[in-house]
Amino acid sequence: MIQHVEVHTRGKGLHEVTTEVQRAVASSGLSEGLCTVMIRHTSASLTIQENADPTARHDLEGWLDRLAREGDPHFEHLAEGPDDMPSHIKSALTSTTLSIPIVERRLALGTWQGIYVWEHRVRGSIRHLVIHLGP
Amino acid sequence: MIQHVEVHTRGKGLHEVTTEVQRAVASSGLSEGLCTVMIRHTSASLTIQENADPTARHDLEGWLDRLAREGDPHFEHLAEGPDDMPSHIKSALTSTTLSIPIVERRLALGTWQGIYVWEHRVRGSIRHLVIHLGP
Amino acid sequence: MIQHVEVHTRGKGLHEVTTEVQRAVASSGLSEGLCTVMIRHTSASLTIQENADPTARHDLEGWLDRLAREGDPHFEHLAEGPDDMPSHIKSALTSTTLSIPIVERRLALGTWQGIYVWEHRVRGSIRHLVIHLGP
Repeated sequence: MIQHVEVHTRGKGLHEVTTEVQRAVASSGLSEGLCTVMIRHTSASLTIQENADPTARHDLEGWLDRLAREGDPHFEHLAEGPDDMPSHIKSALTSTTLSIPIVERRLALGTWQGIYVWEHRVRGSIRHLVIHLGP
Repeated sequence: MIQHVEVHTRGKGLHEVTTEVQRAVASSGLSEGLCTVMIRHTSASLTIQENADPTARHDLEGWLDRLAREGDPHFEHLAEGPDDMPSHIKSALTSTTLSIPIVERRLALGTWQGIYVWEHRVRGSIRHLVIHLGP
Repeated sequence: MIQHVEVHTRGKGLHEVTTEVQRAVASSGLSEGLCTVMIRHTSASLTIQENADPTARHDLEGWLDRLAREGDPHFEHLAEGPDDMPSHIKSALTSTTLSIPIVERRLALGTWQGIYVWEHRVRGSIRHLVIHLGP
């Protein structure tokens, strides 16, 4: 079973989508199985991260911004703006697809885990997720 | 089919779990299929790495320690200790889920590949893996 | 269903394999499902990246070369040459497995997404992919 989800990110950073993915799992009727989420973009990505303390997400975002900096003098791919090439790098370093087991009709995430769309473009965008649900 | 595995990591670094995951594959009775492993934590992660020369793993651990350093003056998320925020970063840069094809009742890993739990906290912990096995 | 694909990389960098993976999907006859690709190596990896402008791939390759440098004085694992340890690091930071939903007999990739084998060894090699296709 395939489901499509759209996420309106309104700027850079981690946007939680656990509820949207869990809703897809519930509507599949599967009590046990595998849920695979793919993001159809190369300047936004997916990650499973701590959902408790917002400072953890803030520090994570800041650290990656300092690692893959805008304005790197080596970059040639600048046509779409200074945040574009760092976006592709951040996407390559994180995840484009995630597969999460389903147990008792729910994502088998740990207590502190949430699923996030990581928007890497400054302005944000409408981001498309494709979700596969299988037994 | 779902299986649960607990791993007692006794400190930072790569802990091989290939045998434990292969045991889950064997008990599933599947001759062909897909094995998905998820770690239910955000301060430990999964990776597939070289299982031959221990210096490769040692260099990998040291390199990532230098990339995501304890004591980064930008960090605000310090309540759980100086190794906590680097742990979340290392987790985001590596894998929380891995999906490995099953061929002839075995994980289709290459000759030099092993599956590892990468413990990022200094003290280690009991880490929970959820394994989904499907045809 | 399992398929095997060999890729002859002729040197470092991103080698597109979208056509080869799509061919495996077509031959499976699945109209909907999940395609999982695994690379059976620890010195080459997989990534989904922009397939439009070659400067994006060039900048990505260069950036990762500067992050995981040859000749790092901390490295002990040098027996297979100076490009070996950076290869393992790059492999750990990118992906060894990717799972992509199948919709209407095709990989559900976004318009600008391609699947790449990322060769990290200078000389290249024959790289083996195992592909699992399921409903």
